Amino acid sequence: MRTLDWEDGALVTIDQCALPHREDILRLRTVDEVVEAIKRLAIRGAPALGVAGAFGVAIAARTHDADGRVDEAAVRAEAERLASARPTAVNLRWGVDQALAALSDGPDAVLAAALRVMDEDDRMNHQATVNAADVIVGLCPDRPLRLLTHCNAGALATAGLRGTALGAVFELAERKLVEFVIVDETRPLLQGARLTSWELGKAGIPHRLCVDSAAASLMGRGLVDCVVVGADRITANGDVANKIGTYGLAVSAAYHGIPIVVVAPESTVDESMGDGKLIEVEERDADEVRRVLGMPVAPEATEAFNPAFDVTPAELITAVVTEARVMRPQGAVAGRAR
Amino acid sequence: MRTLDWEDGALVTIDQCALPHREDILRLRTVDEVVEAIKRLAIRGAPALGVAGAFGVAIAARTHDADGRVDEAAVRAEAERLASARPTAVNLRWGVDQALAALSDGPDAVLAAALRVMDEDDRMNHQATVNAADVIVGLCPDRPLRLLTHCNAGALATAGLRGTALGAVFELAERKLVEFVIVDETRPLLQGARLTSWELGKAGIPHRLCVDSAAASLMGRGLVDCVVVGADRITANGDVANKIGTYGLAVSAAYHGIPIVVVAPESTVDESMGDGKLIEVEERDADEVRRVLGMPVAPEATEAFNPAFDVTPAELITAVVTEARVMRPQGAVAGRAR
Repeated sequence: MRTLDWEDGALVTIDQCALPHREDILRLRTVDEVVEAIKRLAIRGAPALGVAGAFGVAIAARTHDADGRVDEAAVRAEAERLASARPTAVNLRWGVDQALAALSDGPDAVLAAALRVMDEDDRMNHQATVNAADVIVGLCPDRPLRLLTHCNAGALATAGLRGTALGAVFELAERKLVEFVIVDETRPLLQGARLTSWELGKAGIPHRLCVDSAAASLMGRGLVDCVVVGADRITANGDVANKIGTYGLAVSAAYHGIPIVVVAPESTVDESMGDGKLIEVEERDADEVRRVLGMPVAPEATEAFNPAFDVTPAELITAVVTEARVMRPQGAVAGRAR
Repeated sequence: MRTLDWEDGALVTIDQCALPHREDILRLRTVDEVVEAIKRLAIRGAPALGVAGAFGVAIAARTHDADGRVDEAAVRAEAERLASARPTAVNLRWGVDQALAALSDGPDAVLAAALRVMDEDDRMNHQATVNAADVIVGLCPDRPLRLLTHCNAGALATAGLRGTALGAVFELAERKLVEFVIVDETRPLLQGARLTSWELGKAGIPHRLCVDSAAASLMGRGLVDCVVVGADRITANGDVANKIGTYGLAVSAAYHGIPIVVVAPESTVDESMGDGKLIEVEERDADEVRRVLGMPVAPEATEAFNPAFDVTPAELITAVVTEARVMRPQGAVAGRAR
């Protein structure tokens, strides 16, 4: 099955909070349910958020349709709730806007627009992964490749067939070029351990999990040819917001002369924002740090920093690859032989 | 109470695996019990391992004493089991050797030697923390200080009154120079979340916990004046083995022009080892990564890298401070104003 789909008037998705131990299917029929699923990260990943936002508007349009007359103000209010459910990934608002643009043509047109967003997500991400695989092959002289990824930018982070950064890994694996993938566990919510390991295991691609802080050391030991990650927002100058930890990986990659490639659809590029300093970084509940899967790991009163994202400046990134282009910031790191 | 003590023929310690939620006291009366406590990290921290190793030999000498005649071969075999319980921290073998040196004078002499190791641990670490506080004050122009530490190098990591790196924080706090301490949670075993937060909370020093991968981002946001860590082995050239993640912190600190200060007793310096490439880095059970506090977080079959330590080359370290000296590798980072 795909990560997000539309069935009988419901947005159907797998509950990513329950993975990898349970494969619970959610059928979301109200905007409240969609917003709640987004906030608790049952649906997560920038491209997936875009598709979910679009379907959320489709649900709103159907809900506020009385005898063929849509209450546009009500739908726009619901759309705003959807778009602001999480602040950092630009795709969420983009998806909402794509669906809203059809509002004057009625609920069916809104749903058709949402379905188009989903189909385009597949097509765009597939092309971005092919492009990224080509870029990585060009950057890294050694075979087979040892890749490192952070968080989850796989099928689960998109509408669902292949993903972005992990999609590039799948593409390289299909070309028989992958030796193994190092998977950062990605605290606090462990998307690497829970989701990326699960996807790579299903695909039969050799992989090894590590704690996030081991990544630099593994780079130093020569075990990483290239870092491949997704993105939540890319500003006009090429700065990249992505899961907390990406910035540290980029700093370490630059120190070791290892390329870092960002893979994302064009809908993640926010041309309206000049640079990454303007990005709002979501600060999430301290309990995500104080607890692991609900179990306390620190004294209850401990304060915490819990930024869900960080912003990596363009000069630390080797290439940003979308379905349409390859951006190579100046002074970026090229691959080197082992 | 102190972390390690000798009472009625037993090594008495707090079970660090149970902290912060339970303060269980262990009374270890056999070498097997001491080895098991060391292996499962109920006792951990390089200086504490040295003291525990010495007491372990004292237990062995009492056990193999028949009518005033000690079976020296048996004691030496037990001592070797103790010294090799964990490979990376040099202090463990050092403490064992300190106690063994008194073996020909009988069990009471061995115990006296172990008690001396414990008393010296307090004295050495206290002096090292005063020295380190002076070094940090000299390096960092801004007040009050924002410090970042990794793992636990507090009282719990030593025989028990103050610690090494965290002891320097306590010393700076007594001088009213600390604004707050950022505590890396330190996966996989969460010594930062469980132990350092607990010690700082008891001491009333403001602190905030973060996931390990957030440290670089917090440095980039100007929230860190100095990184302060302990060590498990320091080689003759100044390379430092310490908890996994230290290397990545050092790379990030260098990138941001933030000093990183290592605090340890001289017993952590291994002059017999030329450089860090020779250090044996303990690879621990993959389940520490696949699980958190026993709960699975990844598919059960997932393979993992789980190095317990990494080795930071001297050129990335601003200063190594012991009770006796300050080593400043060439080209090291000096502090800069915010």
